[in-house]
Amino acid sequence: MKTVKISIIGFGAVGQGVARSLLDKRDYLNKQGIDIRVVGISDSKGSEINAAGIDLESALLRKKQKGTVATGAESALEVIRSVEHDIVVEVTPTNIDNGKPGFGNMRAAFEAGRHVVTSNKGPLALRFAELKEAAEDNGLFFRYEATVGGAVPIFNLVHEALAGNTVIGIEGILNGTTNYILTRMTEERMPYELVLREAQELGIAETDPTYDVEGIDSACKLVIIANSIFGQDATYHDVDVTGITKITPEALELANRNNYVVKLVCEAGNKLTVAPRLVPKRHPLAVGGTLNVASILTDLAGRITISGKGAGSIETASSVLSDILYIARNS
Amino acid sequence: MKTVKISIIGFGAVGQGVARSLLDKRDYLNKQGIDIRVVGISDSKGSEINAAGIDLESALLRKKQKGTVATGAESALEVIRSVEHDIVVEVTPTNIDNGKPGFGNMRAAFEAGRHVVTSNKGPLALRFAELKEAAEDNGLFFRYEATVGGAVPIFNLVHEALAGNTVIGIEGILNGTTNYILTRMTEERMPYELVLREAQELGIAETDPTYDVEGIDSACKLVIIANSIFGQDATYHDVDVTGITKITPEALELANRNNYVVKLVCEAGNKLTVAPRLVPKRHPLAVGGTLNVASILTDLAGRITISGKGAGSIETASSVLSDILYIARNS
Repeated sequence: MKTVKISIIGFGAVGQGVARSLLDKRDYLNKQGIDIRVVGISDSKGSEINAAGIDLESALLRKKQKGTVATGAESALEVIRSVEHDIVVEVTPTNIDNGKPGFGNMRAAFEAGRHVVTSNKGPLALRFAELKEAAEDNGLFFRYEATVGGAVPIFNLVHEALAGNTVIGIEGILNGTTNYILTRMTEERMPYELVLREAQELGIAETDPTYDVEGIDSACKLVIIANSIFGQDATYHDVDVTGITKITPEALELANRNNYVVKLVCEAGNKLTVAPRLVPKRHPLAVGGTLNVASILTDLAGRITISGKGAGSIETASSVLSDILYIARNS
Repeated sequence: MKTVKISIIGFGAVGQGVARSLLDKRDYLNKQGIDIRVVGISDSKGSEINAAGIDLESALLRKKQKGTVATGAESALEVIRSVEHDIVVEVTPTNIDNGKPGFGNMRAAFEAGRHVVTSNKGPLALRFAELKEAAEDNGLFFRYEATVGGAVPIFNLVHEALAGNTVIGIEGILNGTTNYILTRMTEERMPYELVLREAQELGIAETDPTYDVEGIDSACKLVIIANSIFGQDATYHDVDVTGITKITPEALELANRNNYVVKLVCEAGNKLTVAPRLVPKRHPLAVGGTLNVASILTDLAGRITISGKGAGSIETASSVLSDILYIARNS
């Protein structure tokens, strides 16, 4: 049995999803010879630390009842630096203004000789090159499948499953909220404001939807793709972004009559753009609802298209877990 | 630089595609620190052997001009057993009656302590468990991405990119020829026989199309999925198969009017079935032309759907190459 010690830094929806998945998957992982032991969990109020392995059921219950997992006052950085473990699972909220606290957490992890697995887009959309270099300088893994496409394993697909291929271009729909809004506007012929309100009531859109509907979330994800797959050193300021707030039901209806749908499409190649585009209904990108999709054009395999759920606590945890297992198998 | 010595057993479309890809990718692979050296190539007439590395350009030219790569009389088995190398790339034609010569080649490879990468469905659709056991007993890799879905990396996706997930079920369209025929019959309202003839003229269908249109090729691929992903010990005789030869343009037209398309769908779960099915036009499986698609239902990631080119010399070589690189990185 190979024991891998991890910390979970950030205990919101994703962090709790990771804990829940590890609980549900304990037997499954043990059968594969892997024992994942959580030795530290931090949220904004403090931490729980247990070198023998935290009782995840109790931690989840405490978070639910008390609003925090903390049993002590140690900060995330103290856990990262002082608790002996292999992988820091950095799942604090995305901050697109300055990348805090994720960037500092990740840098501290690499300095302490720990691998990083993250779902946090902010630091990668702002300072990807620095983080990648810190990982490489220390001979550590830096995995971020969960930052883009939720459950859809875009980076694993390109870097491992399509190994040997050169990627020529990538197009994708990388934001489930806007895809849901555009799909509903088309199908129900409802105006933007009404559908947005519906999405907010369903919990698909946030109270302040700016980040999604203005294309900022999509732009961050596109930048991470550009940096990871095309070796660029872009930040989200380099993306030409147009959101979906100006789209009318009439425009969607006109597109529909001509066998097109309107999608908020991200394109990485020579330029980085996020903009509403006409997509033929039978095109692989024409997926509806909250789905995400990436269509990857390669030199050998041709065009490979992958779609799935772009958000959700357990779905994102799926990507985090696959990254943890990758490190467990390869370290 | 890590040198990986391989043999290419079988020098038809796939074998030549592998050689061509290795030539085109030499610099790209060297930059990644990997030098893939082909030390033996066999076809039905004999072999070329060169411990220092075969000149692939000359080998491809000789095959084109003389119809064989052979510069000596050594058989494939002699190359596998006697030439020192790491990976046997077994790409002889699929034989669904008895799996020959692929099965014997693969078994000989494992006995000689060599990893196997293959595109040959026959041995895996008939005697998967024996081959898997032979690989495991000898601590060797057995990789077969190219057997199913052409360029679409289904096994890499499930085993690596979705690691941690339990697969609940898989549906797919795994034969490009029948997908092309059904797509054209729908779009052009042409009868089966006419479209088949068109596909034969375009080289999409073979002169004897039985293997494709009766669903046998699909069934073989489904069995490999069942064995690899669900740990079954099935052979293609266990699949309930219906082909597409009885489908009329009228049936397709009726489906079309109700917003369905007819697809030859493979399903793996409790039962193994290949049969024409009604698929809603907006369903992820509703891909047209010669595309292949697999829709994988998992416990954490939900439904992940991947599509791409299901055939072609270079596309299949892409999958072979990714398997070679996997072994190069992990051995």
